[in-house]
Amino acid sequence: MKRIVIFGTGNLATHLFEVYKYSGDFKIIQVYNHDPKSLQIFNDQVAITTNLNEIAPADIYILALKDDILAEISQKINETNALVLHTSGAVSVEVLNKFKNRGVFYPLQTFSKNKKVDFSKIPICIEANTAENTKVLNELASEISEKVFGISSEQRKTLHVAAVFVSNFVNFMYTEGEKICNDNQVPFEILHPLILETASKVTKMSPLESQTGPAKRNDQEVISSHLELLNEEQQKIYSLLTLSIQNLHGKEL
Amino acid sequence: MKRIVIFGTGNLATHLFEVYKYSGDFKIIQVYNHDPKSLQIFNDQVAITTNLNEIAPADIYILALKDDILAEISQKINETNALVLHTSGAVSVEVLNKFKNRGVFYPLQTFSKNKKVDFSKIPICIEANTAENTKVLNELASEISEKVFGISSEQRKTLHVAAVFVSNFVNFMYTEGEKICNDNQVPFEILHPLILETASKVTKMSPLESQTGPAKRNDQEVISSHLELLNEEQQKIYSLLTLSIQNLHGKEL
Repeated sequence: MKRIVIFGTGNLATHLFEVYKYSGDFKIIQVYNHDPKSLQIFNDQVAITTNLNEIAPADIYILALKDDILAEISQKINETNALVLHTSGAVSVEVLNKFKNRGVFYPLQTFSKNKKVDFSKIPICIEANTAENTKVLNELASEISEKVFGISSEQRKTLHVAAVFVSNFVNFMYTEGEKICNDNQVPFEILHPLILETASKVTKMSPLESQTGPAKRNDQEVISSHLELLNEEQQKIYSLLTLSIQNLHGKEL
Repeated sequence: MKRIVIFGTGNLATHLFEVYKYSGDFKIIQVYNHDPKSLQIFNDQVAITTNLNEIAPADIYILALKDDILAEISQKINETNALVLHTSGAVSVEVLNKFKNRGVFYPLQTFSKNKKVDFSKIPICIEANTAENTKVLNELASEISEKVFGISSEQRKTLHVAAVFVSNFVNFMYTEGEKICNDNQVPFEILHPLILETASKVTKMSPLESQTGPAKRNDQEVISSHLELLNEEQQKIYSLLTLSIQNLHGKEL
């Protein structure tokens, strides 16, 4: 059985703690955070520490930390034979260069603390510095997910920016849609089935094929009437995206 | 039993034809289109016509036509006592003013001919010019959907522009995500679970709460490294949406 220490208590750390609880081959033996308050919820389930000099000897350290403190915390962790992993989409594995055994364990999903997720369907992108470490990392990831992908740091950077488009920017489009509904006393829930179908569609066909709407149809009358309903910031977004869709789809009718 | 004539043979017309086939209370008795070729697939199932002077007497005419020909075709349809409906999100019910009985039957969903949809979950927005017509329209919609909403022409216009944001623009974000993956030899399918979860999340909590990502975190280092990976058009979109997210979320850290 391999022992794990988790660094961090954020959304991902919390979900990893929950999912490895039921693992036979891996056991979380300690959780670290600099802030004692955030450790309270783990206190009766596992050893906790706020001191980087008191990290338990273990086989795997998972640094589920914010990108901007990864380098700093890594520097403060004592030398170790453990396989040290970070979980960031945007940071290269090189940030862990001081460790002999290092890698990346990047689950590509959006996590909220109070929403359960089914880890078995979440793609986990892995990368490690040796074949032996890749093997361990593959076992760690396969223990909780059916979808494990070997992905280089360069490719992961690409995936991360693509994820901003298909998740963060998409969520912002939902936010604008909700705002438009609220401003006009229309329940946003009427749009839920459309949102789900639009997402589901692109898992079955290319989004390039499934584009619809006034921009693709080049329906100027509808586009003008829509712009009249929007505020200045929304108009900017509407105009830019309409133009981009038209550029892409060659102003078909 | 109420008799229906469908005008049009597009995605929506085709889906309506399929779903009312199994109705006990409504029966499609004729399909019209100016183009005989597009009528061929209906030919052995129902009466067809390319001539607006040969429309069968019926209780309900459903004009499932493109917005820009709605007015023209309406003018050419002979006077009738039938309840005449259009299916457009963007056009006012007034386009049907020449008919004594008129209304709107707007299923808020994205339709592709070759993808089955479960109509029972699709919100149908209805509007009619009299209480009696509203009753008939309500029966027509409730026959196929559990979610029927009375929505005025003004509200429907609002819903339509909101739908452009949450569906057409969202699909365009997926398209950019796929392009970024393809350009870097990363399989787009790794992003499918993220796409589905991002959509599913906002049916359970407000998109305002579920926003994540470098823009919301104001993570300038990640934002700069992302911009370097993008082409000029993608950079414009990335910058504008990042700024809008930051404006909305007050540059929280």
